[in-house]
Amino acid sequence: MGIDTYAEPVAYMRSDCHVCLSEGFEALSRVAVEVDGKRILATLNVVQTDLLLPGRIGLSETAWSELGRPERGTARVRHAEPVGSFAVVRGKLHGQRFDAAGLRRVIGDISARRFTDVQISAFIATCAERLDLDEVIALTRAMIDSGERLEWGRGVVVDKHCVGGLPGNRTTPIVVAIAAAAGLTMPKTSSRAITSPAGTADAMEQLAPVDLDLDAMKRVVASTGGCITWGGSVRLSPADDILIRVERALDIDTEGQLVASVLSKKAAAGSTHVLIDIPTGPTAKVRSEGAARRLAQLLQAVGAAVGLEVSVVITDGSAPIGRGIGPSLEARDVLAVLQRRPEAPVDLRDRATFLAGELLQLSGAAPQGAGQDVARRLLESGAAWATFAEICHAQGGRRTPGVASRVVPVLAPRGGVVARFDNRVLARAAKLAGAPTSPNAGIDLQVTVGQRVDEGAPLFALHADSDGELRYALDYIEAHPELIQISTEETP
Amino acid sequence: MGIDTYAEPVAYMRSDCHVCLSEGFEALSRVAVEVDGKRILATLNVVQTDLLLPGRIGLSETAWSELGRPERGTARVRHAEPVGSFAVVRGKLHGQRFDAAGLRRVIGDISARRFTDVQISAFIATCAERLDLDEVIALTRAMIDSGERLEWGRGVVVDKHCVGGLPGNRTTPIVVAIAAAAGLTMPKTSSRAITSPAGTADAMEQLAPVDLDLDAMKRVVASTGGCITWGGSVRLSPADDILIRVERALDIDTEGQLVASVLSKKAAAGSTHVLIDIPTGPTAKVRSEGAARRLAQLLQAVGAAVGLEVSVVITDGSAPIGRGIGPSLEARDVLAVLQRRPEAPVDLRDRATFLAGELLQLSGAAPQGAGQDVARRLLESGAAWATFAEICHAQGGRRTPGVASRVVPVLAPRGGVVARFDNRVLARAAKLAGAPTSPNAGIDLQVTVGQRVDEGAPLFALHADSDGELRYALDYIEAHPELIQISTEETP
Repeated sequence: MGIDTYAEPVAYMRSDCHVCLSEGFEALSRVAVEVDGKRILATLNVVQTDLLLPGRIGLSETAWSELGRPERGTARVRHAEPVGSFAVVRGKLHGQRFDAAGLRRVIGDISARRFTDVQISAFIATCAERLDLDEVIALTRAMIDSGERLEWGRGVVVDKHCVGGLPGNRTTPIVVAIAAAAGLTMPKTSSRAITSPAGTADAMEQLAPVDLDLDAMKRVVASTGGCITWGGSVRLSPADDILIRVERALDIDTEGQLVASVLSKKAAAGSTHVLIDIPTGPTAKVRSEGAARRLAQLLQAVGAAVGLEVSVVITDGSAPIGRGIGPSLEARDVLAVLQRRPEAPVDLRDRATFLAGELLQLSGAAPQGAGQDVARRLLESGAAWATFAEICHAQGGRRTPGVASRVVPVLAPRGGVVARFDNRVLARAAKLAGAPTSPNAGIDLQVTVGQRVDEGAPLFALHADSDGELRYALDYIEAHPELIQISTEETP
Repeated sequence: MGIDTYAEPVAYMRSDCHVCLSEGFEALSRVAVEVDGKRILATLNVVQTDLLLPGRIGLSETAWSELGRPERGTARVRHAEPVGSFAVVRGKLHGQRFDAAGLRRVIGDISARRFTDVQISAFIATCAERLDLDEVIALTRAMIDSGERLEWGRGVVVDKHCVGGLPGNRTTPIVVAIAAAAGLTMPKTSSRAITSPAGTADAMEQLAPVDLDLDAMKRVVASTGGCITWGGSVRLSPADDILIRVERALDIDTEGQLVASVLSKKAAAGSTHVLIDIPTGPTAKVRSEGAARRLAQLLQAVGAAVGLEVSVVITDGSAPIGRGIGPSLEARDVLAVLQRRPEAPVDLRDRATFLAGELLQLSGAAPQGAGQDVARRLLESGAAWATFAEICHAQGGRRTPGVASRVVPVLAPRGGVVARFDNRVLARAAKLAGAPTSPNAGIDLQVTVGQRVDEGAPLFALHADSDGELRYALDYIEAHPELIQISTEETP
């Protein structure tokens, strides 16, 4: 049918179909659909019009692709047996603890798309704040075991993760370049944007190809020590992507799920030493120092249990990092830092060398307390830039980030001091301008917190590649002056 | 689009639609759709083919009907604000208690279809075994207040409810007839089958029309004291139907939800005295005496808090009641009991007079201990039958149940004693034969537990109105000999 229902496979059948009638199928029935020996479970949507010809079955994108995209064939449809492992979730709801074997079955069935979204939601609800340490460890192990696990043949493999991104906070390519320049192995797989204006993979794609399969990735890492690729072509912790989507729909922050999600991906990717950055601030994902510390403790305890050395840093999450927000604009900032250009954003450079320094210390590549100095020297000497250029070349060739066809300045409505950014509103405005689908679209900040501005001075430039998107974003910005707050008081 | 997604409204848009692109809509986005001033929230499914013309939006049945079934018009679509009351569910997940105001907001938003199925699932999960008495009371009140509330202008209005039906257990029409004959007011609204071979409304429809609106119902009750109609045309506790569907998909028995569901419907229907029957047995909904007693206590405590006199009886739920399973066959049994025919099933008559007797006692229409005798006399004297005939007449005229065109005996594979019925397998076989869509289809039992049968003697007759359905049900029966277990031992 070409209908995208995201992860949940859906089958469409006519209400007057003899199979529907005789089997007693109705909307939301769970059915097993078999075509050419392949079999999936799907949720039924009943069609009451001529959208389908009689005797035909329709499939959503996920259902069709799980069945191997058959061009034609006969489908056999029957009632699906209930998924046995859901009894484990039911038991937890009724007060029992999860055990390792039960969680393994649940995660296995979720990876195989045997749970409906409604069932996944109930599973997530049982996990919210109700998992003890042993359960989080068991969940993490089950998620590691549900997918592939990479091997690098090296003693130390480092990685980093940022919990809840800030707009523009594109430190990863710089950290990888410094770590690889220091002789570490850092095979970084990153995500594309899901709700943000740019993921690391989107920004990196403006500098080099990122769609590498595992063999290509291994070649890049063997020759340069690092890579920055898109993680979508490797099946690491496949249950995680499915769980995350439903969690996002619920907007529930479940600490246990978050920890299992992050650490299972890292362990499955073959990492041994992982640095985790928790930006904390009123419009960031983690909003208080106390919450950040609790999360840090859990990450370390679970990391130790699954054989990872984990170091956690809590950083300032009150404002964007760097100037650009959007794939090309962020790539430009990354390049400016690596190439030591005068216009390079200082905050991005400092954040990146801080994180790289922590990673060098964690992995033993720099003595405690000296990490950031070592990282700075690797950057200043040009070693990081040389390594980054090698990585780009090995990934398929270096690219120059594009520039949008429409650039419009947005001016300060009055004079004063820049008091505050709203990260969420900024991100939304960049998306309305077209990011990340239009890679050159986004926001280019021209002020920082604490800076004095005159009325009519440029606050930022809006970049877009179509008039419609430009207008759309400008309307939104006009309606949301909290985007950048200017205080007329002497001190913000 | 004519696609039935059940309760959740779904909107379909093309992935290349400029609105999708500029708004950043993707599969599962929540969108607000406005047509001609009416506005709904819907979940987005993205269409990647020519199923939709460019610039068009498609709507699921529920979405279209909530928008007032517009024939043509311009739809305005934008990102939906998150439903505010979901924060109440999130709070509960994080360990807070539900308060009355919070539950009122949640139930109000569920009734207005502002929750997605995934959100409803999380709400149900939070309710499982985690509600204290005050929370169940608050939930019940919120559900009562979410819909209409009927007034009958009488001091005593009685009702009955059976938790978890047994196949064929069609006591309701008989109980209503006896109660009304005793001078009580019993305006009974019943459901159609959802997963069973027949609901009370399906069986009653074989004897008289049941699709009465509120005014018609009131006229019937005013003239006869009782009615047995389909509850679908009256909006009592509308959140309940939505919750039940998701609970069924999860197959979670949440005691608090069950109590709130049953009692809110009764209170909203204007009842004052309610008898609740809990059939208990290994293949019934409630499987142990202990679970039945706990449920009974909760029903009585919550009933008292919302102003209902509740009496609970725990009955034998080990085997079907009556002989027929399916709308017409059950209607035939009801008629035989009311008309005092010699072939009337004794177990159905005894169960019905027992329940009617309890109801007479509860409402003060019979002294304690004498209820069943009074009920029997009203049945034996023909008073109940006369009242039932009046009710049928007032509801639009009495009908004679039909008989299926195909009746096939199913024989005992060996001699012995009938040891056990599997209620679930029996119900499934009756559904495969066509019940309730084909009202005359179903199963007509010819043996009871403890009865001795010879090899080749008829166990039951299978009724169907098409050869396909007949064959389908016979195949299923052959594959499931546990349907009726015959023991070759002397005592079962």
